[in-house]
Amino acid sequence: MSEEMGMSVKKEDFGNWYLEVVQKAEIVDTRYGVKGMLIYMPTGMLIIKEIVKLFDVELQKTGHKPVLFPVVIPEKFLKMEGDHIKGFEKEVFWITHAGKNKLDERMCLRPTSETAMYPSFSTWIRSHQQLPLKIYQDCCVYRYETKMTKPLIRGREFYWIEAHTAHKTFEDAENQTKEDMMTYTNVVNKELGIPFLLIKRPEWDKFPGAENTYAFECVLPDGVVLQIGTTHNLGEKFSKVFNIQYTDKDKKKKYVNQTSYGPGIARILSAVVSIHGDDRGLIFPTNVAPTQIVIVPIYTKDKREKVIEKCAEVYGKLQAKGFRVYLDDRDKYTPGFKFHEWELKGVPLRIEIGPLDIKNNNVSLSRRDTLEKFIISEKDLEKKIIEIFDVIDFNLRKRADELMIINNAQNMKEIQLYLKEGGFVRAPFCMNEECAAKFKKKTKAEVRGTLFEKKEKASGKCAICGKPAKEIVYIAKSY
Amino acid sequence: MSEEMGMSVKKEDFGNWYLEVVQKAEIVDTRYGVKGMLIYMPTGMLIIKEIVKLFDVELQKTGHKPVLFPVVIPEKFLKMEGDHIKGFEKEVFWITHAGKNKLDERMCLRPTSETAMYPSFSTWIRSHQQLPLKIYQDCCVYRYETKMTKPLIRGREFYWIEAHTAHKTFEDAENQTKEDMMTYTNVVNKELGIPFLLIKRPEWDKFPGAENTYAFECVLPDGVVLQIGTTHNLGEKFSKVFNIQYTDKDKKKKYVNQTSYGPGIARILSAVVSIHGDDRGLIFPTNVAPTQIVIVPIYTKDKREKVIEKCAEVYGKLQAKGFRVYLDDRDKYTPGFKFHEWELKGVPLRIEIGPLDIKNNNVSLSRRDTLEKFIISEKDLEKKIIEIFDVIDFNLRKRADELMIINNAQNMKEIQLYLKEGGFVRAPFCMNEECAAKFKKKTKAEVRGTLFEKKEKASGKCAICGKPAKEIVYIAKSY
Repeated sequence: MSEEMGMSVKKEDFGNWYLEVVQKAEIVDTRYGVKGMLIYMPTGMLIIKEIVKLFDVELQKTGHKPVLFPVVIPEKFLKMEGDHIKGFEKEVFWITHAGKNKLDERMCLRPTSETAMYPSFSTWIRSHQQLPLKIYQDCCVYRYETKMTKPLIRGREFYWIEAHTAHKTFEDAENQTKEDMMTYTNVVNKELGIPFLLIKRPEWDKFPGAENTYAFECVLPDGVVLQIGTTHNLGEKFSKVFNIQYTDKDKKKKYVNQTSYGPGIARILSAVVSIHGDDRGLIFPTNVAPTQIVIVPIYTKDKREKVIEKCAEVYGKLQAKGFRVYLDDRDKYTPGFKFHEWELKGVPLRIEIGPLDIKNNNVSLSRRDTLEKFIISEKDLEKKIIEIFDVIDFNLRKRADELMIINNAQNMKEIQLYLKEGGFVRAPFCMNEECAAKFKKKTKAEVRGTLFEKKEKASGKCAICGKPAKEIVYIAKSY
Repeated sequence: MSEEMGMSVKKEDFGNWYLEVVQKAEIVDTRYGVKGMLIYMPTGMLIIKEIVKLFDVELQKTGHKPVLFPVVIPEKFLKMEGDHIKGFEKEVFWITHAGKNKLDERMCLRPTSETAMYPSFSTWIRSHQQLPLKIYQDCCVYRYETKMTKPLIRGREFYWIEAHTAHKTFEDAENQTKEDMMTYTNVVNKELGIPFLLIKRPEWDKFPGAENTYAFECVLPDGVVLQIGTTHNLGEKFSKVFNIQYTDKDKKKKYVNQTSYGPGIARILSAVVSIHGDDRGLIFPTNVAPTQIVIVPIYTKDKREKVIEKCAEVYGKLQAKGFRVYLDDRDKYTPGFKFHEWELKGVPLRIEIGPLDIKNNNVSLSRRDTLEKFIISEKDLEKKIIEIFDVIDFNLRKRADELMIINNAQNMKEIQLYLKEGGFVRAPFCMNEECAAKFKKKTKAEVRGTLFEKKEKASGKCAICGKPAKEIVYIAKSY
C-alpha cells in the first residue's frame, strides 16, 4: 500500500535489504504501536496461508487433527512443570484485569501451548487404543522478547504451528520426531526450496521440559544460521505432572510419552524472503506463489480494447487450467510501474501482450528468477509455462543449496577461518557445556548440536579445547 | 476423543441436544480451565477451516486483501473514539505485566480491531487512487462477557472474520455493505444452506461508533433468533479521530468513509450444527463437509483381505475424482460403531462394501440426511454420488428454510401469539426507543430493526403502543 515502489538497497547489503524488502513488498508493516508486534501485510499473509495449507495437508496425512486452544493460560497450569516455568516466567505477558475487575487468577498469553493442552490430554486419554493422539494448531504465540527484535525473526508475537502428540513409549515419541522431519522435508525443502539441517541440541540447550530437542536450521544469505522450527521429545516429563495416563493392553496404567513440534511459520517466511529474493525484491517458488502469473497488457490508447480483450482471453484459459493468474488491467499505472510492482512482490512469471504479439500470435514471457525474456507462440503457452515453472523452482533450489555451506575444521584456527565464510562448521567436540560457553563468549558463534539420526563418529581431539572428542558437532553464528 | 459414542438427547430438547452434540461430535470441548473460553476440537476446526476458505475466496474476489494485526491494542488507541470506548470499556481484558515488569502502558486483547487498524490506515492512505482500501483478517476476539456463556454463541473468546474498508464517500461505504450482503449470501446461504435476514438495527442498538449497523440473523430450531454477523457503515466517525485523510482529484483533503464487517465464524458454525443436525448428531452440507464420504468395509475375518482391497480401490477412484473420502479400515471397531461415529460427525454419505456386494458388483449407499439406504451398481457410483450430493444439499436447505418463520402482526395480542411460534414477527412500529424498551421488558423479545435495502411501507398504528407507525420492523426473541 506504499506509493514508492522499487528497492533502493542491494541484496549484498543483506541486513538493510531485508528490512526494506519486507516492508515494500508488503510482507509486514513494522510501524504498529507496540514494540516487537508487527502487522502481517497482504503479501505476507497470502504466503502464510499457502504455507499453512501445505502443513495442513502433511499433518492431516500423518493423522494429526486440527484444534484451537484458548490464547490464555491460567497461571496454575503454566507453573506445573518446573523446568518449563523457569524457562518462560520472564517471557510471558500477564492479563490481570477484565473490564474494571481484577481477575481472581492471573492468566498469561500462550508462549507455547504445552500447559494449555495437557490438562485436556489428561481428561481425554484413557486407553492405549486412543494412542497415538496427534493434534495441531496454527496460531500466534507471545513472548516478551528483550533482545533486539527483527521482523519475522525475533518478535513478541509470532505466527507458528504447534503439533502435540501422545504415545505409548519413549521410542514411539522418538519416531514421531522422525515423522516431523519428513513433514518438514516435504513442505520446507520440497515445496519452498529451503535447505536445512536437523540438529540435535546439546543437553544445555534443550527446550524447557524436553528430553530431546531437535532444531531445523537453515542458512541466510549473510551466512548466519536461522532456526526455523523445532521438535521435542518430552518423554514423561509433562505426563507425570499433568497426570496423563493410559491403561495398556496388560491393564496397567502408564504415563504417555509426548512430543511437541513447532514449525515456525514466520521464520520459514523470513527464510523464503531472504534466500530466494534478489535486488528487485521477492521471488516465490511457483507452487506456493499467491499469484503465479501476472499478465500485463501493453497498449497505446487506440489499441487498448483489442489488447485487453486478448489478455482476458489468455487469462481465462490459464485460470481454467488451474493457474493462479492475475490480469493487471489498471489504467492508472504504466507497464513499467506494474513490472516493478510484481517483480517486487515475487510473481514467478510475467506475460506481456501487445499489438505486435497479437498480430504474430505470440506472447512475451519474463522469468522472475533470471529476468530472462522470450517470445513464444501463443499456442505453446500452457506447455511452456509448465516447463518454465519447473526450471524456476529448480533454479531457486539450486541457488538456495549453495548457501548451505558446511566446512570441516579440526582446530580453533580453522573454525574461526571458516566461520567468516558463513554457514556451518563441522568439528569434533568434547560435549562439555563449559567449553561451549567459553567458545561462544570468544567467537559469538555457538555449538548448535549434532546431526539428527546420523551417528557421525568422532575421533581425536575436541577442536576447541583439545580434550578427547565425543561427538561431531555443527558450529555456527546464528540469529 | 470420547469413548462414549452416540447421542442420548433428542433434538426436540434443543438446548440439551446442542450442548451434547457440540461436545460428542468434537466441535468444541467446554472443559478448559478459564470460564467462557473453549477448545475448538477437530470436527469444529475442520469445518471452520472450510468456512474461512469460502470467505477467503469471496473476499479476495471482491478485492479484499488478507492481513493480521496484533492481538493487543494499546490503551491510547482503544480510547480514541468516544462511543467505541464507552461500548467496550467493561468488556476488555487488560495486559498489565510482562515477565516480572509492569508495562508502561496497559494493552487490551482486541475485542474488535477498528482501533488496532485505523492508526495504520492513517499512515497508509494518501491519495484517492488508493481507495477503496479493503482488508480482512480471520482471528479470535476477546470480550469479558458477564452473561451466561453458551458454546460458540456467547463466549469470552470467539472466532470470526473482520473486514475493514475505506472509501471516498458515505455512499461508497453504504455500497460496501451491499457487497457484504452478497458475500454472506454466497457463503452462508448458498454454500452452508443457512437462510438469514439482513436487518438494519434501530438507532439505539448500533455498534459503538457506527452510523448504520446491519445484522445477519437466522432462526435456530427452538425459534430463537441468532445474530451470525454484522456490517457497519462507520461514516467519518473513526476517520476524524484517527485522522485518515486522502487527497481527492480536486486536490482537497477529505476524510475517508469506512465500514467494518464481521462474519461471526463461531456463530455460523453453531447455526450449521443447530439447523442441519438431527437426533443422531451433525449433518454437513456436502460442499463444506470435511469428509464427504466414508467407506466402511463389512467383513468376516476370512473375507477381510478381499473386502479391504475392494474398498481401497473405490477409495482411490473417488479420491482421484476430487471427493474428500475416508476409508475407515480400523479393525478395532465394529461396523455399527463406525456408522454411529460418522453419523454423529455429520459425514453426508456412507458407502458400505461387503462380500455380497463384491460378488454382485454393487455398493451400498446411505444418505446421512434421510438415513435412506440403497444398493447401486459399482459402475454408476460416481454419477450417483453427484446426484445424491445435490439432493442432500437441496433437502438440507429446504428443511432450514422451514425455520425462517415470518408472521405478520398488527397488535400486541398477535405479536405475543406469534412469538410463541418462534422466528420473526413483522409489525408496524413507532420507532420510539422507550416503546421498544418497555416491550422488551414485558415480553423478553426485541425489536430487531427494519429490513435491509427494502423500503417496507408502514401505515396505521404502532402494533405495540398504538401511536402512528413509522416503519415495518422485525421482532423476535434472540440469543
